Amino acid sequence: MARWEPGAPERLQKAALELFATRGYEQTTATEIAQSVGLTERTFFRHFSDKREVLFYGQDVFVQAFLDGVDTAPSGASPIEIVACALQSAASLFPDERRPHSRQRQSVIEQNPALQERESHKLASLATTVADALRARGVDELAATLAAESGATVFGIAFTQWIREGEQRSLADISAHVLRELLTLTGKATASRSIVTTPTRN
Amino acid sequence: MARWEPGAPERLQKAALELFATRGYEQTTATEIAQSVGLTERTFFRHFSDKREVLFYGQDVFVQAFLDGVDTAPSGASPIEIVACALQSAASLFPDERRPHSRQRQSVIEQNPALQERESHKLASLATTVADALRARGVDELAATLAAESGATVFGIAFTQWIREGEQRSLADISAHVLRELLTLTGKATASRSIVTTPTRN
Repeated sequence: MARWEPGAPERLQKAALELFATRGYEQTTATEIAQSVGLTERTFFRHFSDKREVLFYGQDVFVQAFLDGVDTAPSGASPIEIVACALQSAASLFPDERRPHSRQRQSVIEQNPALQERESHKLASLATTVADALRARGVDELAATLAAESGATVFGIAFTQWIREGEQRSLADISAHVLRELLTLTGKATASRSIVTTPTRN
Repeated sequence: MARWEPGAPERLQKAALELFATRGYEQTTATEIAQSVGLTERTFFRHFSDKREVLFYGQDVFVQAFLDGVDTAPSGASPIEIVACALQSAASLFPDERRPHSRQRQSVIEQNPALQERESHKLASLATTVADALRARGVDELAATLAAESGATVFGIAFTQWIREGEQRSLADISAHVLRELLTLTGKATASRSIVTTPTRN
């Protein structure tokens, strides 16, 4: 049995990010990542199911922040209001000083389709988990799914904006702005009778 | 140079679906898929970049259906109205007789995380492409992204419902219903001042 390595996942993630950014994702092996911080390949795979997963360490904390936001929403809050609380709670995980790290990580992900796939799926899984939490609060099946998916969409768009060069606003502010835009956009559409009253178009 | 095989991608997809459903995705190789319809591994990889991709043959036609819907939306339509047209156009690709095939395909995807990742990413790519088309029609950057992402969300939810056992409604009807639910949900939230007027909560 290998002994427990304190902080190993964090060290491995940091090393992986550096190596992926300098050498490229495809050109870096899990063994090289592990060795660069004095650990073994075996330790790497005890913490991560595959090489991609090292960039997603902390996903459980991220999802939990959304769930904490759902829990703290006032009783009687509408599904979208609950999601607004979840978004603000999640944003608190990304203080301004984390922006350079997030930017570097995203840049690596955007250069590799396999990492993009993993990321798309993580965002989809987040929406599924948040939808379950909404249903547990008594929100209808369909409304829960739509509200949670919209929350994941808003987070994704806001995060992309937050890491843009020159962006100064906090992730919380950007998230709130994007959510308001979504409500404005759909509010306009609701005012149009053609979508709301016509069941089918073809 | 291998000669051109008419209908090879369709035959490979059909064979792959059968083999994945009966033997399992992991237990089936690209060579076995190809051989089961009298083709070679080389032919398989001329059509598909990897084993996963065989289940996503036709994605370009699917994306084009959304784009056709965007094109045919009346001038002056709001972003969500354009997306409603795109959804109805996409739904026309899935007549009732295609339901058993779609159901079998989805069942295979749901049993394999690698296929789920590819699917999540395809849906994300669809949203990116539709957002570009909305921008080309003059829709604002953020509104285009939000409307396109919402369209992809509505499609995903409607499709999941469409392939449920016992579901009788057409995909067009379900899509219209899910979109109306989204508008109702966000319409209610717009009526609540707390989200629309408070820029930040923490």
